[in-house]
Amino acid sequence: MSLPTLARLRVPKLRLARFASTASARNDPNWNYQDPLNLESLLTEEEIAVRPCILSGKCNVPQLELAHPEQENLLPRVLDSWRTEGFNHETLPEMGKLGLLGPTINGYGCAGVSNVAYGLIMREIERVDSGYRSTASVQSSLVMHPINEFGTDAQKEKYLPRLARGEIVGAFGLTEPNHGSDPAGMETTAEEVDGGYIINGSKTWISNAPVADVFIIWAKCKWDGKIRGFILEKEMKGLTAPAIKNKLALRVSLTGSVFMDSVRVGHDALLPHGKGLAAPFSCLNSARYGISWGVMGSLEDCIDRAREYGLERKQFGRPIASFQLIQKKLADAQTEAALGLLASLQVGRLKDAGKLSSNMVSIVKRNNCGKALLHARALLDIFGGNACADEYHVGRHAANLQVTNTYEGTNDIHALILGRAITGLQAFAN
Amino acid sequence: MSLPTLARLRVPKLRLARFASTASARNDPNWNYQDPLNLESLLTEEEIAVRPCILSGKCNVPQLELAHPEQENLLPRVLDSWRTEGFNHETLPEMGKLGLLGPTINGYGCAGVSNVAYGLIMREIERVDSGYRSTASVQSSLVMHPINEFGTDAQKEKYLPRLARGEIVGAFGLTEPNHGSDPAGMETTAEEVDGGYIINGSKTWISNAPVADVFIIWAKCKWDGKIRGFILEKEMKGLTAPAIKNKLALRVSLTGSVFMDSVRVGHDALLPHGKGLAAPFSCLNSARYGISWGVMGSLEDCIDRAREYGLERKQFGRPIASFQLIQKKLADAQTEAALGLLASLQVGRLKDAGKLSSNMVSIVKRNNCGKALLHARALLDIFGGNACADEYHVGRHAANLQVTNTYEGTNDIHALILGRAITGLQAFAN
Amino acid sequence: MSLPTLARLRVPKLRLARFASTASARNDPNWNYQDPLNLESLLTEEEIAVRPCILSGKCNVPQLELAHPEQENLLPRVLDSWRTEGFNHETLPEMGKLGLLGPTINGYGCAGVSNVAYGLIMREIERVDSGYRSTASVQSSLVMHPINEFGTDAQKEKYLPRLARGEIVGAFGLTEPNHGSDPAGMETTAEEVDGGYIINGSKTWISNAPVADVFIIWAKCKWDGKIRGFILEKEMKGLTAPAIKNKLALRVSLTGSVFMDSVRVGHDALLPHGKGLAAPFSCLNSARYGISWGVMGSLEDCIDRAREYGLERKQFGRPIASFQLIQKKLADAQTEAALGLLASLQVGRLKDAGKLSSNMVSIVKRNNCGKALLHARALLDIFGGNACADEYHVGRHAANLQVTNTYEGTNDIHALILGRAITGLQAFAN
Amino acid sequence: MSLPTLARLRVPKLRLARFASTASARNDPNWNYQDPLNLESLLTEEEIAVRPCILSGKCNVPQLELAHPEQENLLPRVLDSWRTEGFNHETLPEMGKLGLLGPTINGYGCAGVSNVAYGLIMREIERVDSGYRSTASVQSSLVMHPINEFGTDAQKEKYLPRLARGEIVGAFGLTEPNHGSDPAGMETTAEEVDGGYIINGSKTWISNAPVADVFIIWAKCKWDGKIRGFILEKEMKGLTAPAIKNKLALRVSLTGSVFMDSVRVGHDALLPHGKGLAAPFSCLNSARYGISWGVMGSLEDCIDRAREYGLERKQFGRPIASFQLIQKKLADAQTEAALGLLASLQVGRLKDAGKLSSNMVSIVKRNNCGKALLHARALLDIFGGNACADEYHVGRHAANLQVTNTYEGTNDIHALILGRAITGLQAFAN
Repeated sequence: MSLPTLARLRVPKLRLARFASTASARNDPNWNYQDPLNLESLLTEEEIAVRPCILSGKCNVPQLELAHPEQENLLPRVLDSWRTEGFNHETLPEMGKLGLLGPTINGYGCAGVSNVAYGLIMREIERVDSGYRSTASVQSSLVMHPINEFGTDAQKEKYLPRLARGEIVGAFGLTEPNHGSDPAGMETTAEEVDGGYIINGSKTWISNAPVADVFIIWAKCKWDGKIRGFILEKEMKGLTAPAIKNKLALRVSLTGSVFMDSVRVGHDALLPHGKGLAAPFSCLNSARYGISWGVMGSLEDCIDRAREYGLERKQFGRPIASFQLIQKKLADAQTEAALGLLASLQVGRLKDAGKLSSNMVSIVKRNNCGKALLHARALLDIFGGNACADEYHVGRHAANLQVTNTYEGTNDIHALILGRAITGLQAFAN
Repeated sequence: MSLPTLARLRVPKLRLARFASTASARNDPNWNYQDPLNLESLLTEEEIAVRPCILSGKCNVPQLELAHPEQENLLPRVLDSWRTEGFNHETLPEMGKLGLLGPTINGYGCAGVSNVAYGLIMREIERVDSGYRSTASVQSSLVMHPINEFGTDAQKEKYLPRLARGEIVGAFGLTEPNHGSDPAGMETTAEEVDGGYIINGSKTWISNAPVADVFIIWAKCKWDGKIRGFILEKEMKGLTAPAIKNKLALRVSLTGSVFMDSVRVGHDALLPHGKGLAAPFSCLNSARYGISWGVMGSLEDCIDRAREYGLERKQFGRPIASFQLIQKKLADAQTEAALGLLASLQVGRLKDAGKLSSNMVSIVKRNNCGKALLHARALLDIFGGNACADEYHVGRHAANLQVTNTYEGTNDIHALILGRAITGLQAFAN
Repeated sequence: MSLPTLARLRVPKLRLARFASTASARNDPNWNYQDPLNLESLLTEEEIAVRPCILSGKCNVPQLELAHPEQENLLPRVLDSWRTEGFNHETLPEMGKLGLLGPTINGYGCAGVSNVAYGLIMREIERVDSGYRSTASVQSSLVMHPINEFGTDAQKEKYLPRLARGEIVGAFGLTEPNHGSDPAGMETTAEEVDGGYIINGSKTWISNAPVADVFIIWAKCKWDGKIRGFILEKEMKGLTAPAIKNKLALRVSLTGSVFMDSVRVGHDALLPHGKGLAAPFSCLNSARYGISWGVMGSLEDCIDRAREYGLERKQFGRPIASFQLIQKKLADAQTEAALGLLASLQVGRLKDAGKLSSNMVSIVKRNNCGKALLHARALLDIFGGNACADEYHVGRHAANLQVTNTYEGTNDIHALILGRAITGLQAFAN
Repeated sequence: MSLPTLARLRVPKLRLARFASTASARNDPNWNYQDPLNLESLLTEEEIAVRPCILSGKCNVPQLELAHPEQENLLPRVLDSWRTEGFNHETLPEMGKLGLLGPTINGYGCAGVSNVAYGLIMREIERVDSGYRSTASVQSSLVMHPINEFGTDAQKEKYLPRLARGEIVGAFGLTEPNHGSDPAGMETTAEEVDGGYIINGSKTWISNAPVADVFIIWAKCKWDGKIRGFILEKEMKGLTAPAIKNKLALRVSLTGSVFMDSVRVGHDALLPHGKGLAAPFSCLNSARYGISWGVMGSLEDCIDRAREYGLERKQFGRPIASFQLIQKKLADAQTEAALGLLASLQVGRLKDAGKLSSNMVSIVKRNNCGKALLHARALLDIFGGNACADEYHVGRHAANLQVTNTYEGTNDIHALILGRAITGLQAFAN
């Protein structure tokens, strides 16, 4: 079974429905309701290839490895994992085979594609489920990125290839129980001792933690009060990572706490080239950028499903998609998806060109998550009583999107980051 | 174990928090943040007693029976049922002991209280979970009400006392797979045969169905094309009621389909005194009225929990409840809860006075469900990453409220009902 | 010409339209789209009489004086005043004749009706224009109220009867150029000198100021740092009150600044029975309560006009009132009007019973102004291109309501007042 | 006095404020709060030059003519025209001198710049006032465009150069009193007679009409039932174009009706190369595209002004721009401006590339107008009581934007156009 099938489940029937019912689509050669502002016209051939690559499991991008060919429908896999909060251990290796992990890194078995291609990958994965995208985000942006950016050659050689293949799972420990929006209050400490360091503290709401082999843990170093990253491994004495169960969303992605009770690591565990909060913030910026693409994929899937449902579902003798109140919901959602994608594309292009400001990431992370959530919820109402049946998938997306709107900087926190950027005055504690 | 504990779980800590932290509450004798427009001043003593009655399990309302005294915390029960979609068979009997089932009916072991008292009961139950309130709504408004209103004396004697005690469970079959918002399209039929009727058809999204002993089934009568209600029982040949599992919300309330394959009933199964859609609509109006109270209870619980969380949770060195963006969410939610309750009270008073219009029910059902959903979601964001942990309860409320906003007339359908009432023009199929 | 005609302009045609087109209104004896939750059932006969009294100019309330009988249409008057920012000097005397000024005061020629009746008066006046209601609010709540509450008998005798008859115009000076939401920062001072006091300072955005005969000016008293009120008169040396022209809204109500350059007043100018901000806040609470009723009248007029327009205006061969997107706007607006009125009624009843909290006033002032503005704007869109023609009146209402939502405590400030009441933590300067 | 000063009024002080107060702007070389997603990086040098060209009145774009050099502040001009509903006859000639009229046309004295440059021109003009932009839109998209697209060479030679210089004023007559959203119901007719045609009918809400020299009038041709355009001139017998006065918005742009009572025109008045509604729709699409840029300029001006006000205005001892509720308003508005501009840019690029779909125009016209209106109103609230003083300009923008959101296809109509495009089902008359 290959990952590409993840996304494929949504395709055939929808495609059919589109061509069967939208007269206007046939008449207007410049209009495709699934790409209403022709985003594709702004992509390179390589970037355009990301989607069919993931859909088919066969890759046309030279830098991305080929996946194996057999195709199966993922629908049962997503629903089953959601219902049981189970972790599917095949997912990361499958992504690895397709070259989807750490794809912007050059070397170490990584694809070395553009940040825009990375965004497009996130979008395709999140069409299936935000939890799968979260797993991929953590591996790529929060674990491989800091090792590549702040690590030694030895650290890169040791970890990156296996992370890229999905053989080992990574986790990122920044958030603490008492410090969600305010990482500067960090309580986890690193103390230098003979032969290395001793790490003490706890982290919470850590994606992948219960199944992670490798942890990037951020700690305040007692010797100079600066925050630095350390690579910990799951077998280390004093480290435990229990799962947080009974989540209401992101149920296909495992989450846990990380407790470190005098965990002893060697000097080679320290990421030497990053110091201060700027280092983990660089990781978060990369992840947030990817989220901004991902949630648009989730919203696009909701639009496709709501449209299809509206065309098939009849009330009062007519398809409900012909009712004004339904059409407005579809139009609103489609517009926001189109705008959010253009904005993320622009941010990706600027990132590739070295002209990125983290404020731009705040704009697209906040806007796209907020809009995806708002409109997924509005579209959900189209399903009437069926909204609460998980087989219709939109309820699952809407539940997931509440979390994406909150994690890696809540909607409000990003508003205040932007408020500070606009006014020069900070209002976080106001 | 008694029902009253249902609601009790939320109380002690919150009460403490209130008096500990709200200086203003102490200084202003006319202000209680939990009753900001002094709804209590408009209630009778009997009505005021509803809440402590439910909270304590000991009833001060003469018409309501006493519950047995032992008290346990329901918290584990709600969460456990939610996680497993399990039905707690003790809940209805416990409600019955407190006199909460069919409470507006006179006689047959029912309490005979006002419609306002009925609303207050729904509000208290839904503070715990919308699913418990749904179970109670169905039993009272959709099963006991039509038997009492449209049934024969024999039918009343046979069913009402046992339904009132919660010994047997009722379900209400109106909605069909292809007719959610449009019951006039009903496909279920009743054919008169020797000695009774044969019922054929199917119903879906029927609350309580998988555990129901008694079903009020609405069918189009072949002899005159009119819709009438029939009382079916679960042992009848040809009737099956499989559960719909894996719901995303209302997981403590069972839902199912009802399939009737030539179910044969006697003449005594017919509810003789109701004919046409007016009969089931009368049931729905009663249920919708109760929902309008119930969802306010759910929202009030969200407010209490969000407020408490905001006072305890600190970021940037201060309780987050001191931040403007948090306070605005609390103020918005509180205002809507206060207004929605006043409106439901007025509708209840008019119902008791025989001056009710179903359009009024549309106003409060639609407004209160829509507002409860909107503000529960806004309050949920206050919890940050913890929002998706079910232990914080607000996520569960928000998920439930999406369903309450949809069932028994979606928000949009009620808008169009009101639109018709305002303009004299119907726009359902537009 | 008499005031009653103020409101009459909107009536005849609308009434006709209602009975001609709303079939449902005829069929449901309990439903009146103009009183959808039957507010009238909660009013006394005297209170019910307020509306026809104002509409007819003939008063059925014993305590309210009779107006003279001739009737003319006010439509030209409102539009003309709006277009020219002119002040109609007949308006206050006409209100006085009807007993609409200071109506809750007992004696001094005032009507002595309930606070609910006062609210109903404000609602009827604001159906015509928020500016007329502002003029009345200032006269009643901000000038007559403090004289009655904090003044000497001599002051009451001197001013109240003439204010009640509308012979003289009053203004209320609290807000200063640099202190809108924060009156505690007041810079106007009173210094005690031989024979009285010297007042220095300036006030801005003062309704009625350019035409006022009497000013209630709040100043910080140099001798003890407390804020107290003073009655100033327009002829006093050093006092000027230039108009602020070219307003975008409330154009039928004059607004100005008040400059006081060593204005010398006698000891008899001091309002002796109020000290500290509590005194002007008591006035503001009274005014805000009245505003909460008034803006509902404005919204109700928008609903009536939008409904009528929607029934007459045809597009695509049908009245636009038959379109779903139009009906939803009407239903949303109607619901908020009904709820807001119920809330104001409850606050009025509690005020009459001595159980008022100022937090309750914040709820209804903020909610009703915010909702009236939101829905007036939504209804305005129904008028399409005609929205910007002042003859359709809804654009004028919408412009006015932006101001009512801001003055006497902006929407946000009242959110923070409520936030403080809920949490015990103040966040004004956050 | 030259047009460039139009926009200049807002600049100097704001620029100063920006550099004085936004520390972060200085620290982050990639961040400019006035171009938060670096739109400029996507523009050509010529396009970038549009803004300083307009600001300075000196043009750096070779294709655009130079304006004369003297500079004066337009502030008094805008306010004066607004207050008096006066038309400034210098405005169009000034625009003409700068090459801003019909700028995408090649030849006939027009600049021949890209559609993106055209959009940028509209944005700069609407920073000053939507009415000025309306005047320019009509001249360029609704008059010069159809003559250039559907006219004969003789017609082009006769009209285009003088229209381009602003020597004559054009108007576009499509909308009729009974057909706003539904032009297919057109009642104006053209009858062929000896030597030409006779036009009968009336048009309403026609921008520029009272001062227009030339009218493009769309009429149903009696001989084949098709709609065609005709060029009428103001001196023609039977044509009158009275002004519609007392508008609540767009007061610096004249609006009128056009009555045609057997207006006789020659055969040379017919635009021969356009037939059916597609012809006027092509004009509307061009105008709507320009509006989508223009309203973003209006919103950007509101953001600049609200930010500046927030930094200067102090309450509770701090600039109000440091309050969370203020910062959120600014961040929300800025995000929408940034996204809307990117979307319009993409549509412009596709237009230039011949890949435009009218559905794309519906997206940006609807989204940008709706968002500009929503956020201008939110920003307006930052001004508190000063919101209704026209000197602060944001109230004027907000009033204008209500009209832009309605004209050339209301927000709802464009939602239904998109709904049809998405679903293949039309719902206009539903």
